[in-house]
Amino acid sequence: MTLVSVQDCRRAAQVALEGAGVDVEAAQLQTDLLLDAELRGVPSHGFLRLQRIIERIGNGVADARTRGSHHWRSDSFLSVDGQQGLGPVVAQHAAEVAGARARQTGIAVAAINHNNHIGMLAWYAEAIAEAGLVAIILTTSEALVHPFGGSVAQLGTNPIAIGVPTEAGPFVIDLATSLVSMGEIHDHAHRGAKLPEGWALDAEGQPTTDPNAAKHGAIAPFGAAKGYALGLGFELLVTALTGAALGRAVTGTLDAERPSNKGDVFIVIDPLSGQGAALSAYLETVRKTRPMPGFDAVIIPGERGRARKAARLSAGIELADNVWANMQKLRDAALAEKEAP
Amino acid sequence: MTLVSVQDCRRAAQVALEGAGVDVEAAQLQTDLLLDAELRGVPSHGFLRLQRIIERIGNGVADARTRGSHHWRSDSFLSVDGQQGLGPVVAQHAAEVAGARARQTGIAVAAINHNNHIGMLAWYAEAIAEAGLVAIILTTSEALVHPFGGSVAQLGTNPIAIGVPTEAGPFVIDLATSLVSMGEIHDHAHRGAKLPEGWALDAEGQPTTDPNAAKHGAIAPFGAAKGYALGLGFELLVTALTGAALGRAVTGTLDAERPSNKGDVFIVIDPLSGQGAALSAYLETVRKTRPMPGFDAVIIPGERGRARKAARLSAGIELADNVWANMQKLRDAALAEKEAP
Repeated sequence: MTLVSVQDCRRAAQVALEGAGVDVEAAQLQTDLLLDAELRGVPSHGFLRLQRIIERIGNGVADARTRGSHHWRSDSFLSVDGQQGLGPVVAQHAAEVAGARARQTGIAVAAINHNNHIGMLAWYAEAIAEAGLVAIILTTSEALVHPFGGSVAQLGTNPIAIGVPTEAGPFVIDLATSLVSMGEIHDHAHRGAKLPEGWALDAEGQPTTDPNAAKHGAIAPFGAAKGYALGLGFELLVTALTGAALGRAVTGTLDAERPSNKGDVFIVIDPLSGQGAALSAYLETVRKTRPMPGFDAVIIPGERGRARKAARLSAGIELADNVWANMQKLRDAALAEKEAP
Repeated sequence: MTLVSVQDCRRAAQVALEGAGVDVEAAQLQTDLLLDAELRGVPSHGFLRLQRIIERIGNGVADARTRGSHHWRSDSFLSVDGQQGLGPVVAQHAAEVAGARARQTGIAVAAINHNNHIGMLAWYAEAIAEAGLVAIILTTSEALVHPFGGSVAQLGTNPIAIGVPTEAGPFVIDLATSLVSMGEIHDHAHRGAKLPEGWALDAEGQPTTDPNAAKHGAIAPFGAAKGYALGLGFELLVTALTGAALGRAVTGTLDAERPSNKGDVFIVIDPLSGQGAALSAYLETVRKTRPMPGFDAVIIPGERGRARKAARLSAGIELADNVWANMQKLRDAALAEKEAP
């Protein structure tokens, strides 16, 4: 691991993206999403992904210039053709437009297809809640998760994020319906560590504790049959609203060559006023719950990530050596290109 | 257990409710909700609850006549004061009105407070999907679930239901964010069976396998920290939209005396047309996934309940002896009252 300052990370990503033809503002946004994941301790959604984004631009399956094409199907339903834009550029624009509409009509949905990977959902949920609105965000992905009792990956990791404004600031949850992320499988492989039992199947559908075998197999849903039901429900709901591909037909969230055909859904709601203090007080009560045996404290979701972010903003970020080496390479190549006559 | 015909169950509940002052149509709806739960194998939401509903009417905390008071906060946001009406009467009316609006504006939300227990969410999700719309339904309850790592119940069982129309009919999931229902704890107590480890805490916050101790304690969230995050997210989201009470301040979903102050949220969305065939084909692919070792088949959520319902509609329903005895008592008392001069 290498400790890198936030400033150096940010500049490397920004320069690399601009070198790939992304304009300043879009590069800032994409960088911010990746950086925020690193700051909060979600490296699977961090700078690890920078190279693939740049490769996808080079391969013509990520368009650095579009913000997506908007079509209001009806007053509160925005259909967005992402036109293979950069995930955060298309998604943030759609979320803002849907948020503005939600202030008028009470609730609005942005249903996005043909958009690249939008990164950590918590980022959007926090921004929406910060603006005083409630968010429910869903996105699908390539099939990585097996059905409960099934031997083959048929579902995306299908996360949900919820953001709710409270007096003490945004409350945010963001969780995949898989038991773990493929990033955690890769991390175990990298460290030569075995997987806990029950995490994954190999390519033949047999339970495995070998992370290298699991890479070609499937991850379990979280919470057994219930997590599977949720993941399946989100997969169907997203496609019903976006027309996205389903299950094993989904491409473009992990590879560098194929168009992205998953879907993103942002539901934005204008909440009742005057609830913020009650929500904050309740969270404080939950936080102060006496821990059960074996636990030190009750954690409010999102708060550990926020504390990590505060610490890392000043102390810097521990990046895997190869991730930082690669960022420097991408940065230096962009700088050399720029200085070339 | 006693095998009772659907007709006899239905008539007993209908007569008992009408005897309590519920009009014919509302009694049919309330009966249908309870019956449907029995048919699908969810007795915790079945006729077990009939007596408490009738007691609540008698105690003035359930109003057999109101359908709730509607206020459009904005074009797509319906605020409903349930006026302590019967849960299904208020909720079904609100869901229908929100559904009609969703056909115009694309998406609408009904946010309901001061409403009695609405029963099995799957019933509404199926009806909405049957009508060609997508549903996301949330409801809160009295605090029965402890935070992950916490020793005291602070959250409701906070279920979510999702309904999506497909070519082959409605796809429906309906799951509590608790690991099990309080009904299952009571069922173990009734049978003198121990609880599996990890299900529950006693009143002192210690892990217990004694169902009688668990009744006064707390149930675990499903899926550890993730299920806890979801349950907490739903609790906050519902209150942000409805102004409902939170955590241990919630009353009226289990007792017979106190007003109900939890919240119900129905989000109804008009989906893209033309997705139904792709959704059905995907579900068929998931169903046919080769089972993993130790499993016979991959189950699509909701389908076992539907199969049970089909069988029980002709064969009748196995009711716990005391539940059926009680229904007969309530029916006979209503009939005697009616025939009294």
